[in-house]
Amino acid sequence: MAPSAVEMEVKGETDTTAVVVPNPLDINGLASWRKKGAVPTGTAAFSSSDMFKSPACYTKPKAKRWDHILSTEAKSRKPSSLKGAAKYLSRPGMISLGGGLPSSENFPFEELSMKVPKAPGFSEGEIRASGRTITAGKHDIREGKSLLDLEVALNYGQSVGFAQMVRFVTEHTEIVHDPAYSDWNCCLTAGSTMAWDATLRILCERGNYILAEEYAFASALETAAPLGIRVAAVKMDEQGLLPGNLDEVLSNWDEKERGAAKPHLLYIVPSGQNPTGATQSAERRAEVYKVCQKHDIFIVEDEPYYFLQMEPYKSDVPPPSTREEFLKVLLPSFLKIDVDGRVLRLESFSKVLAPGSRVGWIVAPEQIAQRFAHHFDTSTQNPSGFSQMCLFKLLEEGWGHAGYLDWLMHLRLEYTARRDILLGACEKYLPQEVVSWVPPSAGMFQWFEVPWKNHPGYAKGLSHVEIEESIFTAAVDRGALLCRGSWFRADKNMAEEKMFFRATFAAASAEKMQEAIKRFGEALRAEFGI
Amino acid sequence: MAPSAVEMEVKGETDTTAVVVPNPLDINGLASWRKKGAVPTGTAAFSSSDMFKSPACYTKPKAKRWDHILSTEAKSRKPSSLKGAAKYLSRPGMISLGGGLPSSENFPFEELSMKVPKAPGFSEGEIRASGRTITAGKHDIREGKSLLDLEVALNYGQSVGFAQMVRFVTEHTEIVHDPAYSDWNCCLTAGSTMAWDATLRILCERGNYILAEEYAFASALETAAPLGIRVAAVKMDEQGLLPGNLDEVLSNWDEKERGAAKPHLLYIVPSGQNPTGATQSAERRAEVYKVCQKHDIFIVEDEPYYFLQMEPYKSDVPPPSTREEFLKVLLPSFLKIDVDGRVLRLESFSKVLAPGSRVGWIVAPEQIAQRFAHHFDTSTQNPSGFSQMCLFKLLEEGWGHAGYLDWLMHLRLEYTARRDILLGACEKYLPQEVVSWVPPSAGMFQWFEVPWKNHPGYAKGLSHVEIEESIFTAAVDRGALLCRGSWFRADKNMAEEKMFFRATFAAASAEKMQEAIKRFGEALRAEFGI
Repeated sequence: MAPSAVEMEVKGETDTTAVVVPNPLDINGLASWRKKGAVPTGTAAFSSSDMFKSPACYTKPKAKRWDHILSTEAKSRKPSSLKGAAKYLSRPGMISLGGGLPSSENFPFEELSMKVPKAPGFSEGEIRASGRTITAGKHDIREGKSLLDLEVALNYGQSVGFAQMVRFVTEHTEIVHDPAYSDWNCCLTAGSTMAWDATLRILCERGNYILAEEYAFASALETAAPLGIRVAAVKMDEQGLLPGNLDEVLSNWDEKERGAAKPHLLYIVPSGQNPTGATQSAERRAEVYKVCQKHDIFIVEDEPYYFLQMEPYKSDVPPPSTREEFLKVLLPSFLKIDVDGRVLRLESFSKVLAPGSRVGWIVAPEQIAQRFAHHFDTSTQNPSGFSQMCLFKLLEEGWGHAGYLDWLMHLRLEYTARRDILLGACEKYLPQEVVSWVPPSAGMFQWFEVPWKNHPGYAKGLSHVEIEESIFTAAVDRGALLCRGSWFRADKNMAEEKMFFRATFAAASAEKMQEAIKRFGEALRAEFGI
Repeated sequence: MAPSAVEMEVKGETDTTAVVVPNPLDINGLASWRKKGAVPTGTAAFSSSDMFKSPACYTKPKAKRWDHILSTEAKSRKPSSLKGAAKYLSRPGMISLGGGLPSSENFPFEELSMKVPKAPGFSEGEIRASGRTITAGKHDIREGKSLLDLEVALNYGQSVGFAQMVRFVTEHTEIVHDPAYSDWNCCLTAGSTMAWDATLRILCERGNYILAEEYAFASALETAAPLGIRVAAVKMDEQGLLPGNLDEVLSNWDEKERGAAKPHLLYIVPSGQNPTGATQSAERRAEVYKVCQKHDIFIVEDEPYYFLQMEPYKSDVPPPSTREEFLKVLLPSFLKIDVDGRVLRLESFSKVLAPGSRVGWIVAPEQIAQRFAHHFDTSTQNPSGFSQMCLFKLLEEGWGHAGYLDWLMHLRLEYTARRDILLGACEKYLPQEVVSWVPPSAGMFQWFEVPWKNHPGYAKGLSHVEIEESIFTAAVDRGALLCRGSWFRADKNMAEEKMFFRATFAAASAEKMQEAIKRFGEALRAEFGI
């Protein structure tokens, strides 16, 4: 199916017939494709992923419709009347006294510079020695110096983000995931926490159940609870969510007993799951997807750790040496598997660049992505212009897609090294009679299982929570802070059969990680009397 | 009433007895007060306005309780279990493997510099010539160079904002508004649009009515509508909201007819109201406050234009020449008037620094401010670290409170000049038989009234909306875009007696403003056949 007339029009000047674009799109093919298109650079200029997706996208079928799962809130949201007036701005010679956008004359920032790494000098020492300083001026666009400047970045913008950033994340999405349906769209977010809050408000009503892994990201659960959204927990193994149990929960759903309709939304963290560190294999993902098709479940994949996939533990296989190899060793995302358009992917820069940017993006069928844009119109508006500017300068002008992939390959090795330090300490210091673990293949978390019924307190009648508290406190008293597994229970009413603790290898230095694990080992020995 | 033990503890090392702090606090008194306190500089360090308010605040009575107006959502929000664990971090020698905060080693930003104006060189030309470049490094705190660095700013932070910024806005609030009750608190926001969305979710339920001016900020209304929150419109004159009509609406509230309980929340823009440009006098504010006390209404004052109070039009009175004079000519905010703690003030940097920062703050009784912090924990988290860093460098290190007031005095004259250019063009080009206006004393909007029943279409049976459309289109066809008054109607069911158009003098250059008004004049002449 060729691009429709509307799609061609959206793309503006783009004449797709004359371009040879590789299918699927890759970094090398991007340059020739880009030459044909233009990025809108005006203040608060409208843009959409449709301007930046390659022609191959349009040969695929469209997503199925999801109107039936939209919330009352989402359905009753109307386009802004003021933003509707923006359509007149494109008329030649039009002078606007319409929107209350302050003049950039009165922005007290004339230049913004940042020192960033040049590939492959990614370490802190190398950045200091050989990093590159990139500068944004106030009127760079007008002066032909850049596609984004402070005049635009510091004014109001569209809720999908600046076109310049929408283009980058759209291209990145196509290069990495190459979705199997045509009408996917990206919308920038003020971080994935906000995106998840919006997801719940757009796709759920008070009283609904959603599906989640039995141990899940505490903050995600705490976002749902005050909205009156309950969680149906699905059992996991070391690969995360069990598709069989998902099918069971859904097939045996008892509306009367639960007091709610069968859930229509699954929240999962497929790679380096928080808190368990579990990563779903490609086969597991395919099985989970199949169950979701069977029960018509909409999938939200929250993937902050996707690019923290690490080298296999204690393996002699050399790490990927080219960008192509790197992309090939990455597990397929649900977005990639998704033939129906039933996946919303929450993307984040927090774990791969910096949490403080508070910028992420979502990828979803256009019908859903548009609801996010409208939701943000009256909440976060556009993500911070300072953040978008710094990300644009780094990603687009500093690195380009190739340099960004180089950085992600660097991070892969950084996290591999961090994990290996933690695991080395575990093997050295932890009493394996009373604690076991599976080396994680992605993310930043190590999950420890403790046989709590062997704890001396168990025979004395201490409960699960009391023994967990006792071990936690013993570690804290020795100067090691870990998280208690019970903090992550998706369904607080379900009895816990097992007991877990979570440690992160993202934050502390090598010495401190080793020392903390040693202390945790001492606490376990003291608690279990060994 | 002396500070309580808890308040003293919160302030840490602060020994208030030995400090002589002016009451009310002013810029000169700040330095001696600050010397006694410290600002927490750790990653995601806890802070609160209570650390930074001067002792005089604690001599005042506490706010009344507002538990009865909290929404189900707000009431069911529980403190985060993970954030609860942060209390162990202060134990000496503790090593945390708890929170999944990435190491700053992996933040690819080594330095961030910005060129900003030095007072009084505030014009763009002066900034280019004599602006100052301020640089943030990654480890400035550790190296003793600054109170905020990229290591902290680019990691996760507390939802109230970085302590360094909480201190600045708290001091600014005390210097400018000196609230009349003791337990007010500030919480940073990801912009006032997000803050208003949060306000509605924290203080209202689906089905509630809120009170608003009969013409109100369209985006604020569009935030409320999808939440099922309806608007009871209150009549206005050239000073904005009419207290008599507010009393009438509330006294005659008919639950059955409206299908909802009497409203408990008033949304107002007291200074330079959008869209009417109306500014409430000090007397008007006092009257409105009194009616709110009578009916126990909680007031939300949305004040982006507070510092765009301008010089009286065509006046020979010289502008304020000192910071003290400047603060004295500012109208009292509702926050200043508020003796009960019934005011939530939405503060914004969008109109005074740059909309792209997407940083603002709220001021409210501590019980309410805390609900915002919890709401943001699971939505926006902290406002962008890039934005907070740039604002901190400008406001704290570049300008200080004194320089910020100098900037605001500069803006006052900038907007006065812009308004005067627009009004000059109106006097010159607009046919006063068919359009009238009141010069605004604050904000960025000029509101035009058009006697629509004199339009030739009226005799031919054209409706209000058709005549408004006809005039709007006539202006657009001549290349002038204004906003239609009907876009701002708070209650779309109320018939409009009058007809208005809104123009902004914030955005366009002098020449373009004059040309657009000329075109609007031509459109009016053509439409009214004069």
